[in-house]
This record gives sequence, C-alpha cells and structure tokens, in this order.
Amino acid sequence: METLADRVLAGQRYALARTLTLIENDAPEGLATLASLFPHTGRAHLIGVTGAPGTGKSSLVNRLAHYYRHPPEGQPRRVAIVAVDPSSPFTGGAILGDRIRMRDLSGDPGVFIRSMASRGALGGLARTTANVVQALDAAGFDIIFIETVGAGQAEVDIARLAHTTLVVEAPGLGDDVQAIKAGILEIADILVVNKADRPGADATVRALTEMLKMAHPTQETIMHHGRRMVINAGQKTQKKEEHPSWVPPVLKTVAVDNRGIHELAQAIARHRAYLEETGEWHVRDRVRLQSELENMLGEALMQHWRAHTAAEHYQSVLEEVFSRRLAPTEAVDRLLAQSLPPAA
Amino acid sequence: METLADRVLAGQRYALARTLTLIENDAPEGLATLASLFPHTGRAHLIGVTGAPGTGKSSLVNRLAHYYRHPPEGQPRRVAIVAVDPSSPFTGGAILGDRIRMRDLSGDPGVFIRSMASRGALGGLARTTANVVQALDAAGFDIIFIETVGAGQAEVDIARLAHTTLVVEAPGLGDDVQAIKAGILEIADILVVNKADRPGADATVRALTEMLKMAHPTQETIMHHGRRMVINAGQKTQKKEEHPSWVPPVLKTVAVDNRGIHELAQAIARHRAYLEETGEWHVRDRVRLQSELENMLGEALMQHWRAHTAAEHYQSVLEEVFSRRLAPTEAVDRLLAQSLPPAA
Repeated sequence: METLADRVLAGQRYALARTLTLIENDAPEGLATLASLFPHTGRAHLIGVTGAPGTGKSSLVNRLAHYYRHPPEGQPRRVAIVAVDPSSPFTGGAILGDRIRMRDLSGDPGVFIRSMASRGALGGLARTTANVVQALDAAGFDIIFIETVGAGQAEVDIARLAHTTLVVEAPGLGDDVQAIKAGILEIADILVVNKADRPGADATVRALTEMLKMAHPTQETIMHHGRRMVINAGQKTQKKEEHPSWVPPVLKTVAVDNRGIHELAQAIARHRAYLEETGEWHVRDRVRLQSELENMLGEALMQHWRAHTAAEHYQSVLEEVFSRRLAPTEAVDRLLAQSLPPAA
Repeated sequence: METLADRVLAGQRYALARTLTLIENDAPEGLATLASLFPHTGRAHLIGVTGAPGTGKSSLVNRLAHYYRHPPEGQPRRVAIVAVDPSSPFTGGAILGDRIRMRDLSGDPGVFIRSMASRGALGGLARTTANVVQALDAAGFDIIFIETVGAGQAEVDIARLAHTTLVVEAPGLGDDVQAIKAGILEIADILVVNKADRPGADATVRALTEMLKMAHPTQETIMHHGRRMVINAGQKTQKKEEHPSWVPPVLKTVAVDNRGIHELAQAIARHRAYLEETGEWHVRDRVRLQSELENMLGEALMQHWRAHTAAEHYQSVLEEVFSRRLAPTEAVDRLLAQSLPPAA
C-alpha cells in the first residue's frame, strides 16, 4: 500500500500539506512519515531571511521566489517558503502576510508556502520548523526560504537552520543605537538594505559596512564565527587556510520594484559555491542535525521523567517552592533523586 | 562566618554584583548563594518592558526609575533594571545602551543596573535572567524592570517573568502590517506609545486600541489570556466573576521630555492593585516559579544523560544521522534505550 511518505516523494501537494499539518500537531503519523522521508533530505539550499518588522522581508522573499521560478538562464527551481512568526505565540498572526503573498505566487505548482506561528511551546517552534523544512527538502524543493519576523534569540535559533542567512534592514531604522545589533550581524551571510529608494539608504549601507568591519575585523573573528556553528557539537572547525573567508556583502534592493533581486540572487549563488568549496555546507548540515537531535532528546528525557514521577510527589515539591521553603535548585535535586538510576 | 548571601541581604552592592556575575557564569557558588537567598524573594514588583528597537524603551525605563526614586508622594522605592538583549548572542551589545543609561542614574545607591546578553546558550538567557531577578528581589529592590530588546519568542518568554508587562510602540512603525503583532499585544498589560510628539501618534494609539479589541474581544478571550499563564502548570485559572477583567490601557509618553511618566506610573500602580485583588499576583508567581523549575529540570536531565552515555556510542549514532541512514526520531529512541531505566 502506498504510504503518505511515498505520496510526498511522488510530489503530491495534498499529501505534503497533510504531512506538514501532522508534523505541526506532533502527531505520531507525522513523525513516522518524517522518519521515512529523512533519507531523502539534504539536497535543498536552505536560505534564512530575518530582520526587524517593516524591512519588507516578505516582499523580498516573494521576488526572489519569482526569480528562481523564472531565472534568466538555466532551469526553473522549485521553491518553498516557510514563514515563521515567533511573536505570534497565541494567534495566527502570520496568516495576514500569507494572504498578501498568495496573490503573487498562487497557482504556481513549483511554489509551496507555509506559515507557522508558535503556539506557546517553549523551544517548540524551532523544532517544528526544522521538521517542516525536512519534509519540504524530501519533497524535492530546491530552495527553501525560512523567513522569520523579528531579530531575537528565537530568530537566531531558526536562522541556524539555514545554509545562507540574509539579514534585511531598511533605511530610517538606523537612527537608534539599538536598531542594528552587532549580534544579528554576526549571523548574516548577506546583508540586504531593502526599500533602498528611501532617503538614507546609502547611510544605512555605510553604517552596516562599518558595523561589519567591527563584527568581522580579522580572519580570526571570522573563524570564530565559523566555530560558533559547532559549539553544540563540541567540535572545532578546522582552519582552511587555502580558502578565503566569506565577507558578507551589503546589497541594496527595492523589492516592490524588483530592483536588486538579480544581484541578490547572484550573491546567494556565490555564497552557496563558497559553502561547497570550503566544506562549510557539510559542517552546517551536521551542526543543524545535531542541534535538532539534541532538542528532541531533551524533550524525550523530560517526557520520560514525567511518566516516571508521581504527580503527588511533584506537586508537594512545587508547593514547597511556592512557599519559598525550598529553592528551585534544591527542588531539582530532590525530584531527580528518586527517578534517576544511580550514577555508574 | 558571614556568607556572600548574608552580605547581599545586608545590602552590600559589591556582594550583589559579585553574586550576579557568579550566577551569570553558572558558578556553583552563585547557585548556592541563590539557594540561600531564595527564602527572601517574592516581594519585588517585576515589570517587563518589551517592544521593537527604536521605540525608546531604555529612556522610558530610565524615566520611570527616576520617578520611583523621587515620587510626588510616599517613600522612594529601590529600583533595579535588568536589560536583556537576546539579539546579542555573541557580543556585548547591551553595553552601549547601558553606558547612556548610566549618565542618568549613576551615583544613586537606590538604583542597580545590570545588562545581560545571551552567550549563545539555547534557552539559557531566560533562566539566567530569572536567577538574576531572584537575587535582586532578595537584595530588597522594590521594583525590578526587566527590559528586553525586540519582540520575538525569547522576549515573550522573558516577559512571562514579570507581574506587569509594558509593550512599547512608537509612531511610524505602524505602517507595516507586521509592525504590530497580535501575539505581542496579548502579553501586554499596559501599552505605551512612546515618542508621542512624533507625527502619527494618535493613529498609532487608535490602531493599537483597535487591535486590542481584536485581541481581547470578550471576557472569554481575556480569561483565555489568563489561562495561558498556567499552561505549564496544567492548572486552570478559576473565573473570578466578582472582579472585572483587566483591559490594557494605551498611554502616550514622550520619555525624553518626561511627559506621560506620572500617568504611566499610575497605570502600573492600578495594575498591581488589580493583580493583588484578583489573586493573579499569586498565580503569576507560581507559574513563574514552576516554569523556572522545569527549565532547570530539563537541563539537569540532559546533563545526567550525557554523563551516563558513552561518547563513542553517541558519536556513532550521530554519524548515522549525518549520513541520513537514521532519522533523528529513531536516533533518540536508540540513544535513550540504553541509558534510561526500564518503564515501571
């Protein structure tokens, strides 16, 4: 009998949509389908797009998607867009942007769009996004955009999923010391000043270029950036002296007028070539998989602990914490003492 | 002999600063001191302040801090400010804003300021912030501001620490459909339109008021908001029919000119009275403590698992995942099979 995974691999849109819904709901059938799809992953180019609200990220992604569907040369690429909105934990805030987007790209069978909003699950959005991206990868999409709203830790975590991360800015946001953060620059592979027809675009480009110099002053710092990718792995990225380091370019676009999109696509292609030549593509893939695995492991450990701890015992410990008789650290020790096997 | 905790409780600033550093570094001495301080917590009013970059949150917090130090009536309150910057995972981005802030409030022994930047630890910033806030609470600060940059999931998680959450907007950011998100409105107890001398302030107030109506259309929805606070607890907030629900007010301020600060402080006082009268103060306290405890529990479980798993075994499973022969879900099953006690 044909399984859901078979139908996803055969390119059936409805089967894919259903799989994504099952994944989002953490349904066992969704996770089983994902396990069957997993051997077929690892081919897509994952492109993260992040930046503050108002920078026009969605328009930019739409134009890039359109570009890859109708490239000036070569075959059209299949494109998926995952729009992640961590600031909508309780309502479907991503849906509004989605509807606007649908007008541009709907009806093209080579485009698949999915909006995701956190449902309040702590840390859950990054994992669900990773799973959705895996399913789209297995379904044969060549390019998968992972677009996030905002630029906080959640966005950084989600950007780690990507091979190539675009950080989008816009003129006029830069007049506040907090508007452009060094931290978010450090995850950028390509910087985009969108809405570049607005006053102050060149000043924003200059400010970003200056901040990039501060963020990446030397080869050493760039290698530090590379090392950051494998912090979880406890590994070290080998210095590859034979390859020049990637210096993030700063590009101007006016997405609504389709200006600068071709140049941006070229920069993305250069970054992909860089990743492949240096072996960084492989490194990022491994870091991503390990990080996903460890998130799942943490959740599984917590579930197992819950299943083996009496609810009354937990509640009584909680009450002691609530009344300030027991510190949380002490509570953890007491809760784990009964449910863990003795140290070897 | 006098311990570090004793000296913190005696109001010694240097001991407090040292304790916070130990906590931030996850040093055993810091966690032990925190355990000693814990019985003295639970008195401070925790005020979360969040909003997009450029809204002037820091100035607003400075003015409020100054107000509480020099109130028009009553005793001065001791004020602590914890500035959290989740978008600076790798560099000390918070330091710049901190320096500006110091000019206004430095030299006042009744004010304590601490900047915190994530150091790339997934989920670690919320826990460390919670610990820092506990130490400040025990040290006798009456009001603790927890100010976050940005408005993503990390900020929402940090805002959950607070009794009262201010969401700050500014005119001119609202021309983008993504600029004001329904999700972030749902965590707001008080909405502030800062920089209200700029064009479009009234339009922003109207837009926020409209969005609030959408976010809180009925009593039912507001109770849903209340329920969200105890999702982790698996408890239900009892409907308290005798108390009217809190409807978040929308206030205009011009922090740099000190305008609207008195009215904002009055709204904060009303919210505190509301929390105490309805018992919500107590509920939020419990939800916060339980959430902190469960974060620590998850980390402890992961540490324990690591300590009882052979590194070679883990590495061989990882390699199978990297080569796509084993799906992450299957890898989790295999990794846990050896290290967990059999199910009861």
